[in-house]
Amino acid sequence: MKKILSAGIILCGLTVFGQTKEDSVQFSKISTEILNKGKAYTDLRELTKNIGHRLSGSQAYEKSVQWAAKKLSEAGADKVWLQEVMIPVWERGKESLQIKTAAGKWKTLKMLSLGNSEGTGGKDLSGEIIMVRSFAEYDTLTPDQVKDKIVFFNYPFSQSYVQTFKAYGEASAYRSTAASLTAKKGGKFAIVRSLSSALDDTPHTGAMRYKDDAAKIPAVAIGNTTADELQNLLQSQKVTAKLNSHCGMKGEKLSHSVIGEITGKKDQSVIVVGGHLDSWDVGEGAHDDGTGIVQSIEVLRTFKNLGIQNNHTIRVVCFANEENGVKGGQQYGKTTKENGEKHLFALESDAGGFSPRGVALEMDKAKIAQIKTWAPLFLPYGAYDFEGRYSGTDVYPLRDMGVPAAELVPDSQRYFDIHHTEEDRFEKVNRRELLLGATVMTQMIYMVDKNW
Amino acid sequence: MKKILSAGIILCGLTVFGQTKEDSVQFSKISTEILNKGKAYTDLRELTKNIGHRLSGSQAYEKSVQWAAKKLSEAGADKVWLQEVMIPVWERGKESLQIKTAAGKWKTLKMLSLGNSEGTGGKDLSGEIIMVRSFAEYDTLTPDQVKDKIVFFNYPFSQSYVQTFKAYGEASAYRSTAASLTAKKGGKFAIVRSLSSALDDTPHTGAMRYKDDAAKIPAVAIGNTTADELQNLLQSQKVTAKLNSHCGMKGEKLSHSVIGEITGKKDQSVIVVGGHLDSWDVGEGAHDDGTGIVQSIEVLRTFKNLGIQNNHTIRVVCFANEENGVKGGQQYGKTTKENGEKHLFALESDAGGFSPRGVALEMDKAKIAQIKTWAPLFLPYGAYDFEGRYSGTDVYPLRDMGVPAAELVPDSQRYFDIHHTEEDRFEKVNRRELLLGATVMTQMIYMVDKNW
Repeated sequence: MKKILSAGIILCGLTVFGQTKEDSVQFSKISTEILNKGKAYTDLRELTKNIGHRLSGSQAYEKSVQWAAKKLSEAGADKVWLQEVMIPVWERGKESLQIKTAAGKWKTLKMLSLGNSEGTGGKDLSGEIIMVRSFAEYDTLTPDQVKDKIVFFNYPFSQSYVQTFKAYGEASAYRSTAASLTAKKGGKFAIVRSLSSALDDTPHTGAMRYKDDAAKIPAVAIGNTTADELQNLLQSQKVTAKLNSHCGMKGEKLSHSVIGEITGKKDQSVIVVGGHLDSWDVGEGAHDDGTGIVQSIEVLRTFKNLGIQNNHTIRVVCFANEENGVKGGQQYGKTTKENGEKHLFALESDAGGFSPRGVALEMDKAKIAQIKTWAPLFLPYGAYDFEGRYSGTDVYPLRDMGVPAAELVPDSQRYFDIHHTEEDRFEKVNRRELLLGATVMTQMIYMVDKNW
Repeated sequence: MKKILSAGIILCGLTVFGQTKEDSVQFSKISTEILNKGKAYTDLRELTKNIGHRLSGSQAYEKSVQWAAKKLSEAGADKVWLQEVMIPVWERGKESLQIKTAAGKWKTLKMLSLGNSEGTGGKDLSGEIIMVRSFAEYDTLTPDQVKDKIVFFNYPFSQSYVQTFKAYGEASAYRSTAASLTAKKGGKFAIVRSLSSALDDTPHTGAMRYKDDAAKIPAVAIGNTTADELQNLLQSQKVTAKLNSHCGMKGEKLSHSVIGEITGKKDQSVIVVGGHLDSWDVGEGAHDDGTGIVQSIEVLRTFKNLGIQNNHTIRVVCFANEENGVKGGQQYGKTTKENGEKHLFALESDAGGFSPRGVALEMDKAKIAQIKTWAPLFLPYGAYDFEGRYSGTDVYPLRDMGVPAAELVPDSQRYFDIHHTEEDRFEKVNRRELLLGATVMTQMIYMVDKNW
């Protein structure tokens, strides 16, 4: 295809107040700086290729703490420190899942134990599989029907929603609760269909939780193709499954979130921008959430490199332990409260390093209305969505203390193809998409810093 | 990351007129149908993997003609036919480019001859390289300085623009004219830095044109990394280049565009939706423009599968020869004029199978204003950009006849990483992004069919 574009796009008849020519020029400077000189992409290559996946409690996570502290210093932070956080230690170890029909031989399935799940202690745990498609269907089963069985929760990730997070939210209840539901009716372990938008065989891990009144039995995920095959098998015959795994909680450990800031020139009230430094223990934690980390560091670097005089303190927080505990976010909230530190705004990036489409907001209506007046400034950068919806998992504790909170909204089509999998690697991140996300984050922090 | 979204997004205070509840329901049906049952992705796998790249005049292109005709029938077209088109035949053949410094040995560079370029006839063509950064710099050179030299047009693809098509438009003048400019001052051949947003070493081909008053000397493209290395070398020493290539124009040939339609229930005026079936002779022609072809077929299939009663004839046109001649588009325009066939609208998809952001419009202001009143219907599908800007290369002849013309606007960040390269393969296309593009196209055709 070949054509030449005319100038930028201007959306509908938006009322343009709250923006100035000066802001528009500053937005352009930020964009030009980041798209040409941004280091987020090369930083991400280092994080993913030199360190790789980095589950809380692992040696790799501790390496990433040192790496992030160094990067924040190099980016120009006035102060860099580590915030102590007690984190749960979960380890996977070896694991295998096999199935067999009456007439057949054992066949090994691709699988991943769910995060936080207990394993079989290295012993074989086997039984007949029963399949349900939904909680409603499971509710119809009596304990007699479930006792000593393996329950396969075969709830599909909906393809119908344009915003894939909606499908994820819907299906994630199965991942969270399958084990405890199965245990309560006497089942041996649970299998869940992965929370995956891709029609492939990649299993997706992710956090599960045990209910206090249920035995801690194992839960594992299988990919879509394997789930389809198992579903077909179960329609015509009995299938036995055998799980052998070593995963489980190994107590707690002292770890750290990493924090760096540039001090406010007018006052020391704080604007937080961050992501989570930990990842699951498969793949490279690229989109989840290496991209959020390197974008947040890019925000700080860009303020320094452009010499933008920040009124308030701009603080990058690389949160520990989002994936299986959110202890980093909770500790940050607690420390903030204890220190009585005033926070103006908290922006997280934890939905992938894809082209930005806006910033989701969780704050009072007046502030949302004010941010919407800035929308025309963002439109040339592809960001148009500034609705009151949600913010980031790690900044929920701040939100709960009344701090206006937000999260970058990237295009969501590709995220759940690779989320929490072996496939979440550096190669799946596009340089320009990543940098454009960092651009919109920097622009938003600039506007908040200037106007609040 | 883990969170649950609330309902869809609603943009600013858009006045909602021209849309009805019925349209909103139909939009949702179209989206649900395509995201769940769309065949565009599996169609694209067939086209790219079973046929592969398909330059006009090649046997592969002729295979793709048969394939597209079959697909249109299967999708439910009432009529399918081939439209005769005389197309230019350009062939690449073997090619190599080497460089050498005074003290060094010959080193082979990754390269691609530009499309439509003549080659060296299998003989070595060598000379000293001189580098210019821009047309302005080239203009300062005298014929004496250029005579017998190889001119390296080292104009960088700008990273600054958010819309990458703008950078492409700017840089493409170098690809088009480098050979003739070099020839006019007596140079032997031209090297251009690829029109590439990726910082890698992939060379990008694409059409060049000879000016009538200049000798037809060769032009080749090198990737960004090689261009950087060559630039560094040339800053300190003389470099000799040697080209050996067999490419060139091999006359004309009869070929075909492929057309399929569902007849209008109210009248036979025509709404065109299409892309181009040909591709360059490297990679698999996935994003350029396999995606446009399979999306256009998806539009027709969706009308049939949902039983939408189309008032007007909906016609899918798979244009021949966009890449190196646009003869398919020109012939379609000519035939339309000869037959006096009334055309209501022509929509092309030829900017990649990425997440849609809108539809670019080229038509009178009143029609643009009307389409903008439909914008709130499209917003839940991520499409918000409905400005008067341009339309598709293949529908320019229709536009020139006064037909309202348009082109799908996908996210542009990744397109010029792989455009016209070995890397433009099926694996670079995301299923949901592709299907969402087809969704917005179908929705637009539905609105035009209903309202015009």
